[in-house]
Amino acid sequence: MAVYTEVPDGDLAQFIAEYDIGEPVSCKGIAEGVENSNYLLKTTKGTFILTLYEKRVKLEDLPFFIGLMQHLAGKGLNCPTPIADRQGQALKTLCGRPAALISFLEGMWPRRPTEKHCQALGAALADFHLKGRDFALRRPNNLSVEGWRQLIAATADRADEVEAGLGAKLAKEFAYLEAHWPKDLESGVIHADLFPDNVFFLNDKLSGIIDFYFACTDFLAYDLAVCLNAWCFQPDMSFNVTKAKLMFESYRRVRPIPEAEMQAMPLLARGAALRFLLTRLYDWLNHPPGAFVKPKDPMEYIRKLRFHQAARDIGAYGLK
Amino acid sequence: MAVYTEVPDGDLAQFIAEYDIGEPVSCKGIAEGVENSNYLLKTTKGTFILTLYEKRVKLEDLPFFIGLMQHLAGKGLNCPTPIADRQGQALKTLCGRPAALISFLEGMWPRRPTEKHCQALGAALADFHLKGRDFALRRPNNLSVEGWRQLIAATADRADEVEAGLGAKLAKEFAYLEAHWPKDLESGVIHADLFPDNVFFLNDKLSGIIDFYFACTDFLAYDLAVCLNAWCFQPDMSFNVTKAKLMFESYRRVRPIPEAEMQAMPLLARGAALRFLLTRLYDWLNHPPGAFVKPKDPMEYIRKLRFHQAARDIGAYGLK
Repeated sequence: MAVYTEVPDGDLAQFIAEYDIGEPVSCKGIAEGVENSNYLLKTTKGTFILTLYEKRVKLEDLPFFIGLMQHLAGKGLNCPTPIADRQGQALKTLCGRPAALISFLEGMWPRRPTEKHCQALGAALADFHLKGRDFALRRPNNLSVEGWRQLIAATADRADEVEAGLGAKLAKEFAYLEAHWPKDLESGVIHADLFPDNVFFLNDKLSGIIDFYFACTDFLAYDLAVCLNAWCFQPDMSFNVTKAKLMFESYRRVRPIPEAEMQAMPLLARGAALRFLLTRLYDWLNHPPGAFVKPKDPMEYIRKLRFHQAARDIGAYGLK
Repeated sequence: MAVYTEVPDGDLAQFIAEYDIGEPVSCKGIAEGVENSNYLLKTTKGTFILTLYEKRVKLEDLPFFIGLMQHLAGKGLNCPTPIADRQGQALKTLCGRPAALISFLEGMWPRRPTEKHCQALGAALADFHLKGRDFALRRPNNLSVEGWRQLIAATADRADEVEAGLGAKLAKEFAYLEAHWPKDLESGVIHADLFPDNVFFLNDKLSGIIDFYFACTDFLAYDLAVCLNAWCFQPDMSFNVTKAKLMFESYRRVRPIPEAEMQAMPLLARGAALRFLLTRLYDWLNHPPGAFVKPKDPMEYIRKLRFHQAARDIGAYGLK
């Protein structure tokens, strides 16, 4: 839900004239993403997304994000592609902000993910992992173990406002994960935020993946753990093993999952749950009352984390 | 800036299937308007705006708004047209809210209105007035004299928080306007909110008028007074007589302005300034801190009102 920067018409016309994309026909701010300003731009030649990168995105990360989209689209992955201007530049400036014009991806994200959606997701995620293997840039995952340490420190004295004893539980969980976090699984480009609102479908067919602004270099299996959390719990927080099975089966058909990754999955799922729990907790504790962007409830991930903590092995997910 | 109601994909698909508009291809919440939830919907057959009417719009007013758009579009005015479903219904229900699917109007609103924009606006406003003359429904302007009385009462005890002495000045202005408000100018359908963000242009050519949700039955000349306020002041609040002249000249070429309307214009402009001053003041005093929709600064209209109060006659606007 976001338009932070208003683009004056003259500036927009001048910006668009630097591309070979025709004349502007309409330009509407869209309520999507919380990090950047996004406009849906129609021109006489097509439809595009115009993104202005706001303060939470680091300037030095943009070449990784833009380059990754170009790399993946070049390999035929269905994802938004940054458009180069007449000078060959894809990362530009508009209204004093870094900006990029990106191809428009058809489809809608599933508000109520079904088994079919989860099945399609598995194959798409594996395809993404394979196509990202030879991407040359690297970006550390700053929301992995070191990031959790910082978020725990930043929320420690107020975590119990959300639930009594939560601060101590988070510190204990962190100590466990830090001691047991895997070191030698296959690493590569991961999406790291593949929630339903970042996966588009057309008639139950997956039409593409969007929002690469958390993408980084980390264990491929961690992406699966994020998806277990984001796609396989029911609204009542019960775990749907059918969804997990279908997701993993279709993933495996594209990229076989090594045994070490399967064994690490409950731990990775705990880590992924802690990651989203901590950022939501931080936002929850630090948003101004009645804020522009309503923060997501951290309770959801407290409950998901409990499920993973109780999992003895991969069998708890209906997987083997 | 608004999406208050999230539409689940199943509900959306079912809704769209009731129309002859093809299959949905994408549906994005747009950051436009503050009253309703608006989605930009692309289907295999075209682009549409899907509006869900939220609480601030009265259900009993919707037939007037929807009927007016249909009437105007039927007469060839460039404005969004409500689309009827296979049963001939244009006003429907989605997610428990009144909803309408409306044709998409190309164009962009001018962030920095120029003389050319003002000139085009005059003719379009007159055209709108003529085409609205035989619209059968009526809707009183609840933001005219009686509405101001209520808003003054609702803001009286806190108006001075914005500027010392403001409450007394508003009461005095209201008493003057109430005593002198015209009674016998030509009445008809007016837009009543024709600000730059409701007028679209393509290459400096006016492509259409949107947002009829303040439209009502009132003096046609009052619409011109609203436009004087909304279009003819510079960012530094100085009045641009060239813009006013061009707007009035082009209006007159479509609908001659009776002498009584010209003489009443300074008074109507004071009323229009008071109307926007009061709603902004009310929203300013009553919004929660850091609210979802940032209220507009009432100071702008305090300054505009002062300009009109100092106007001896129509000559103060460069008009005659």
